[in-house]
Amino acid sequence: MELNQIYRTSLSLLTDLYQLTMAYSYWKNDMKDKKGVFHLFFRKNPFKGGYTIACGLEQALQYIQGFEFTDDDLRYLSTLKDSADQPMFEQAFLSELANMKCKFDAWAVKEGTPVFPFQPIMRVEGPLLQTQILETPLLNIINFQTLLATKASRIYEATRGMPIMEFGLRRAQGIDGGLSASRAAHIGGCSSTSNLLAGKLLEIPVSGTHAHSWVMCFDSEIESFKAYASAMPGNCILLVDTYNVFQGVRNAIEVGLELKKNGKKLLAIRLDSGDLAYQSQKARKMLDEAGLEETKIVASNDLDEHLVQSLKEQQAKIDLWGIGTKLITAYDQPALGGVYKLSAIEKDNGEMEDTIKLSEQSIKVNIPGQQQVRRYKKDGQFVADMIYRDGAELEETVEIVSITDPHQKKLVLQKEMQYEDLLKKVVDKGSVVYDSPGVQEIRSFSLEQIKALHPGVRRFTNPHAYPAGLDVSLYRDREQQIDKLKKL
Amino acid sequence: MELNQIYRTSLSLLTDLYQLTMAYSYWKNDMKDKKGVFHLFFRKNPFKGGYTIACGLEQALQYIQGFEFTDDDLRYLSTLKDSADQPMFEQAFLSELANMKCKFDAWAVKEGTPVFPFQPIMRVEGPLLQTQILETPLLNIINFQTLLATKASRIYEATRGMPIMEFGLRRAQGIDGGLSASRAAHIGGCSSTSNLLAGKLLEIPVSGTHAHSWVMCFDSEIESFKAYASAMPGNCILLVDTYNVFQGVRNAIEVGLELKKNGKKLLAIRLDSGDLAYQSQKARKMLDEAGLEETKIVASNDLDEHLVQSLKEQQAKIDLWGIGTKLITAYDQPALGGVYKLSAIEKDNGEMEDTIKLSEQSIKVNIPGQQQVRRYKKDGQFVADMIYRDGAELEETVEIVSITDPHQKKLVLQKEMQYEDLLKKVVDKGSVVYDSPGVQEIRSFSLEQIKALHPGVRRFTNPHAYPAGLDVSLYRDREQQIDKLKKL
Repeated sequence: MELNQIYRTSLSLLTDLYQLTMAYSYWKNDMKDKKGVFHLFFRKNPFKGGYTIACGLEQALQYIQGFEFTDDDLRYLSTLKDSADQPMFEQAFLSELANMKCKFDAWAVKEGTPVFPFQPIMRVEGPLLQTQILETPLLNIINFQTLLATKASRIYEATRGMPIMEFGLRRAQGIDGGLSASRAAHIGGCSSTSNLLAGKLLEIPVSGTHAHSWVMCFDSEIESFKAYASAMPGNCILLVDTYNVFQGVRNAIEVGLELKKNGKKLLAIRLDSGDLAYQSQKARKMLDEAGLEETKIVASNDLDEHLVQSLKEQQAKIDLWGIGTKLITAYDQPALGGVYKLSAIEKDNGEMEDTIKLSEQSIKVNIPGQQQVRRYKKDGQFVADMIYRDGAELEETVEIVSITDPHQKKLVLQKEMQYEDLLKKVVDKGSVVYDSPGVQEIRSFSLEQIKALHPGVRRFTNPHAYPAGLDVSLYRDREQQIDKLKKL
Repeated sequence: MELNQIYRTSLSLLTDLYQLTMAYSYWKNDMKDKKGVFHLFFRKNPFKGGYTIACGLEQALQYIQGFEFTDDDLRYLSTLKDSADQPMFEQAFLSELANMKCKFDAWAVKEGTPVFPFQPIMRVEGPLLQTQILETPLLNIINFQTLLATKASRIYEATRGMPIMEFGLRRAQGIDGGLSASRAAHIGGCSSTSNLLAGKLLEIPVSGTHAHSWVMCFDSEIESFKAYASAMPGNCILLVDTYNVFQGVRNAIEVGLELKKNGKKLLAIRLDSGDLAYQSQKARKMLDEAGLEETKIVASNDLDEHLVQSLKEQQAKIDLWGIGTKLITAYDQPALGGVYKLSAIEKDNGEMEDTIKLSEQSIKVNIPGQQQVRRYKKDGQFVADMIYRDGAELEETVEIVSITDPHQKKLVLQKEMQYEDLLKKVVDKGSVVYDSPGVQEIRSFSLEQIKALHPGVRRFTNPHAYPAGLDVSLYRDREQQIDKLKKL
């Protein structure tokens, strides 16, 4: 799918005004071509979890590919006035935008990769004017898809790999809140979506049942079930709780036996309210006793990973999980809080210099320099991650210092490990050079990657903190720079 | 703005698969033209609040206007297979969709109107095939904008009408999660957005400051402030907390005095971390003592209505409020939970018959029939609302029964009141007949309407329940129908 297929208007103004006022001020101060280095990262795993799944790169790159200001965009910008009712931007600046050639480079982590706090998901380097404006759209796209893929991954963890039907569109935050959410949820572990547009544009499998309204259109439930089965003999899932759940199950059984007689199959019944553990156990027994062992049970009703886990613990007889609102909005934490921070800037002599921002909250002090993330693995399991200066020569034994607790250190003898640098080049001088895999491939990759994480890191309650931190020399540089700034 | 301007792809598949399987089954069972009556409503005010602001109608109507299946859509539907690997939909059904003429009618509450639980925001009547498919897109659009307008209205309530700058785009749930959110937030009470695309497409005022990265691009903060002021002399708001807040204020004052000398003005400083009450008081004093009484103070940092209220109580000296994540995602309740329920169906003899769905949770039992909402007012204040059968003859004195607590009743002598029926015709036989006002007009209307609500209904903690319920005869019909179904 091309993002522009959906959003054929120019999206270059999908950014904050202040990015443009800064771009203008860079331009006015002859700094527009000065090179800046930005990293996109988050400071805390969402949902009090132990890991995060990077997602959204494909759409971010499509955004970059279409990043140019149209006449329409410039006309709008020329109408903006300042407090003295003067044009906010000089015409020459707008011409600069009109003729803008993208010159930045970018590196990113592959979609579906587990990532941890402070690790750059993306690094963008290039002319300040351009790299500054990209802050907002990149955050918008990557924050949300990463959040959603992580939520879906947790639900997948709770179902222990059982099929998850995502059907949140009606409660999603806007059209794209449904569309890009369906993509990310599929990558994180959902099997199918109810969203036909996502099915059409993103090649995600679609699935569905029927609503209470179907049943209410008939004089009786049994009549409605028969009518549905006759129309949909190869796709028959019956919702049994419109009036009385167990009477509904009996009616579904009647229809199921009829389908079976004709060589067809009642695929499933769906429970959508009340005590799902008790109902599913009793319904399973009723179905089995009637000889419909093959008919599955779908459950839904405001489920999330915690409810799924609890139902599994109660031995609920549920085969398929329907997940809506709690997934599609990431209900318990609807924003990732990812940021895009400057960490180096070109000096007048052309050399790059670290930048650092102080804060009363030390978690908000950025990591300086041009960063790369090295992931160490052993026997297929992830052992530790280290943020280091890209291109730096490393010793045979590296020392990794935790950012939130510098007393936690880890020594890694590199030659005893396999390792991989997670940030790959995706944009070269403004051109996208990365060929994004299809959604199915990203999903398989993501599900495979998760297995390389220790179960303690994946659990919901007080997850084990995966060993991740800074190369000790980068850590020391950062400490020195903080001290220096504080003395000013 | 035309929604299709943004989303030029066909959005007719922005619906759940089950809407299409039901549509298909209606068609197979010769029921496609049977008339169904659906109401879109919610069961609880969001954010534990006392009211909700209806929003999103303009986009919903644009959706309806563009509602037709393209060849592309039909081609996709023809690829869907059932469990026996047979096409899910017959070709003749797809031809039916290709030639579909919209024939439904719809009524809706004006955008910006305060509404209450169980009241239809929209009523859709017409051929089941069409009215069923519309469930998901109408919910998607109206649920989210209504949620966001309500959140913004609460923040407006907390600031007591002071200007609110919305800048949530980077944390929004996808592209449209930012765009339609900016619209709804403006209608609810925000003064401006940072989102340039919303500014361009929706004619919402835009505003902005600069980021920490601006400061970090220079050797010192004062240098960065001077450079920004020289580029943006008419739009100068300085962010003072990159290194040390009060040193930042001193630097801003230096620049502000320079601007003043040249007949310009430092519009504001912005505080973005730490103790905003203390910082704003001290900064105000510093600015005043320097003779910059005209320079305002903007505050931001994960603010919501509760934090704003607390800062106001602490006498914080804040003039403008910057609100991001907590607003744009409706953080404490990211979904409204609106539903779209069948409440009447055409019988074979052409008459309409009530439909009702039981549930273990009595709050989930729907209200039957074709509904209208009458709002009673006195001296410009809203007194009570009543859901009644549209077109029913009412007594001079009506009796309104609360749905959640039937012991609460209210008698209204109609001739002593002004009243208005809230649902207006917006679609006639498939054609949109309502001319949506512009965003600014809706915003003014919304802010005016809120004043007609008792302050007790508007407060955050245990708000007073606005008197709203069912006409007693509709209430009795519903009770009888529930009893009848339970005896089955």
